[in-house]
Amino acid sequence: MTTAAPSTFRAIDVIRKKRDNIELSREEIEALVNAYTRGDIPDYQVSAWLMAVVLRGMTRPETAALTDAMLRSGEVRDLSSLTARKGDKHSTGGGGDKTSLVLAPLVAAAGVAVPMISGRGLGHTGGTLDKLEAIPGFNVNLPVAKFRSMLETCGCSMIGQTAEIAPADRKLYALRDVTGTVESPYLICASIMSKKLAEGIDALVLDVKTGSGAFMKSEKDAAFLAELMVETGERMGKQMVALITDMDQPLGLMIGNALEVIECVEIMQGKGPADLRELCLELAGWMLYLGGASKSVVEGKQKSADLIASGAALKKFRQMIELQGGDPRIIDDFKRLPKAQHKTEVKSANAGFVASMQCEQIGAACVILGGGREKKEDSVDPAVGIVLHKKVGDQVAAGEPLATIHYNAEAKAQRARQRIEQSIEIAAAAPPKRPLVHGIIGRSI
Amino acid sequence: MTTAAPSTFRAIDVIRKKRDNIELSREEIEALVNAYTRGDIPDYQVSAWLMAVVLRGMTRPETAALTDAMLRSGEVRDLSSLTARKGDKHSTGGGGDKTSLVLAPLVAAAGVAVPMISGRGLGHTGGTLDKLEAIPGFNVNLPVAKFRSMLETCGCSMIGQTAEIAPADRKLYALRDVTGTVESPYLICASIMSKKLAEGIDALVLDVKTGSGAFMKSEKDAAFLAELMVETGERMGKQMVALITDMDQPLGLMIGNALEVIECVEIMQGKGPADLRELCLELAGWMLYLGGASKSVVEGKQKSADLIASGAALKKFRQMIELQGGDPRIIDDFKRLPKAQHKTEVKSANAGFVASMQCEQIGAACVILGGGREKKEDSVDPAVGIVLHKKVGDQVAAGEPLATIHYNAEAKAQRARQRIEQSIEIAAAAPPKRPLVHGIIGRSI
Repeated sequence: MTTAAPSTFRAIDVIRKKRDNIELSREEIEALVNAYTRGDIPDYQVSAWLMAVVLRGMTRPETAALTDAMLRSGEVRDLSSLTARKGDKHSTGGGGDKTSLVLAPLVAAAGVAVPMISGRGLGHTGGTLDKLEAIPGFNVNLPVAKFRSMLETCGCSMIGQTAEIAPADRKLYALRDVTGTVESPYLICASIMSKKLAEGIDALVLDVKTGSGAFMKSEKDAAFLAELMVETGERMGKQMVALITDMDQPLGLMIGNALEVIECVEIMQGKGPADLRELCLELAGWMLYLGGASKSVVEGKQKSADLIASGAALKKFRQMIELQGGDPRIIDDFKRLPKAQHKTEVKSANAGFVASMQCEQIGAACVILGGGREKKEDSVDPAVGIVLHKKVGDQVAAGEPLATIHYNAEAKAQRARQRIEQSIEIAAAAPPKRPLVHGIIGRSI
Repeated sequence: MTTAAPSTFRAIDVIRKKRDNIELSREEIEALVNAYTRGDIPDYQVSAWLMAVVLRGMTRPETAALTDAMLRSGEVRDLSSLTARKGDKHSTGGGGDKTSLVLAPLVAAAGVAVPMISGRGLGHTGGTLDKLEAIPGFNVNLPVAKFRSMLETCGCSMIGQTAEIAPADRKLYALRDVTGTVESPYLICASIMSKKLAEGIDALVLDVKTGSGAFMKSEKDAAFLAELMVETGERMGKQMVALITDMDQPLGLMIGNALEVIECVEIMQGKGPADLRELCLELAGWMLYLGGASKSVVEGKQKSADLIASGAALKKFRQMIELQGGDPRIIDDFKRLPKAQHKTEVKSANAGFVASMQCEQIGAACVILGGGREKKEDSVDPAVGIVLHKKVGDQVAAGEPLATIHYNAEAKAQRARQRIEQSIEIAAAAPPKRPLVHGIIGRSI
């Protein structure tokens, strides 16, 4: 049952309705979000409402209304003057997940504009902005005019969230963080989608991770969130698809900011690890298809592979780095990237097969080294990280290196080593192979 | 699963556990209540926890732990120096519910001390303090020493809640009121029981109302709350019983503060309406039995009837009024009570039987007259009110008076009349008779 918002909005009425499982109207949700953003209703009413949402859930129209209200709480980029279609990708995050650095230039090289707004790393998950800032001089805080002109001249730009984008989300997220109300697919959906759609894009490819290193451990939860986000985006008139992809071990071989830049350049050079390359092509294929640059996903993948082979993707990456004040020579000379002072190998105690990797723990080892943040205020060491030599299913001899730790402080390296040793399980037989893409969700398939 | 409180208490952990339906330990609940009472954790965390409690519920040990923590947040009266056993009654409230004024002196006359702490009226429900204050000079704000000495000399005293009693409840209730978290039997139980048990009593008789005029409309909800309160009290070592009693129409014939004092005196004079007399004897019987003044409830009821017949109850009431500064002459001369300037009758439009009375609406009519409060800050006119001439099941002729309105303002009387007319349904046949006592809950039965 949907009812209209009362002429005089009272937060208590909206809290009670949600508590009693009565569907809220678009007007009621909008009034709540706007009043909270303006500071007209107190935190304690909103946190009670958030908890009711966590435990009661939301209908699809409610979720879309919340997303829309949060989106319109701030500035919505109008990129309609750009002739190119605008597309983006969002990942729910995980260890070694670095596809954004490949996708932005690759997809832009195909003629789809990518106005990518990213975040920083927190906990075991890395952040795109931290990786970009490993490139000397790279500026992720561009003025809006510069961001817009880059989209016209280069076709892509990668920046951080500005205060003007979805202020309701920033305020709500801070409250959710301290009131046990983060874990709701409806609130997660509204948070992600309000920020992404504020970019003014036409198409969005979602990379929803599942497995030990993902926020959504189970495939069921990942699929639920994916469907919710796809439907919410479609209700808001966007071309949407979600790929449920594997995050049971780190993606690629490198974890750590500068190391991940290297791995991305290698992908654009037609090299790099197979899983990362495959996922980049898969996501790029969808971005090209939804962005109107190919007639099918298969054609989009092929076109993406061609743009890598021809060097066009790397050329676009070089152009983007230059326009954002970074040093493009890092592409030809990795020594120009921050480099850790020391390296040490983690060797396998036994012979056998890599049976599993606790992905979150490997991410945590990178945080211990200084490569990530435990708290928002922490600074990040771009040079440190971990290079894996084995992935799940690989055979390993006793004493053979499993990983190399790149470090700047001996004590931290010791602690990271322990974590990594505990995280990699060696067994007599290889485990069943997990697919890279577990499922694809979207009406456009 | 119960787990011990962590050495460093974090509100967020307790919120998450309740959200995820994991039982909280006594230590965790105590830490939360104490930290909130001290002001060490913010409203927005507690309101999220309260909403999780509303939607997840509480186990019996959790409910007892919450009650105990709230009780011990302030002063717990130590009445152990009193040789008499201490008993009290608590009602969940309703229209015309005035038994406290009869029970305190009646039960005290039987030798059970009654240290009664009551509240004020809000909304359609009247409050014992407002009724007492209709007696000229009656002081409900006694110093603790005076309250205590009255219990020794008179055996009863009736006062308002002091700041020292259960401060956690006062703070939590104010937050619940604005966050849609009032409606939880667990929180209602803890709120009522923490205050009542802070009186230092040995036995408590609960009068849980059910019907159109009760907070708990359905008998099922009333029984659930009653069982919860009885078990909570028993877990805390108290003699407990709960009577589920009818509140589908006002209790007795009079609604309004001075009018209700008159009706109570009439009961103690061996007169007054049958339903009020019956309920007073029923509750007194239990109070005497649980308070050790009779060997059975039946004997307790008989003893109470005798104390009314002998005039001992009225004598005790006179003594209590005198000791609290009131004018005891009101007992012999009702004209000494505040009296409304005008009266007007509400007559029945049709002949037939009274089929139903919307009890809350009749209470609301009394509030309209000025006899109750819409907001906490409102002042109360003790003189106004409503006298019913018919009760549910009574036959009525066309034009026969259904009620008399006692008023001081013509416009208010008009609005009250409309409410009353709309609230009393006349039908061709009498409805099935509802029992006064729907059920009795307690191990002591």
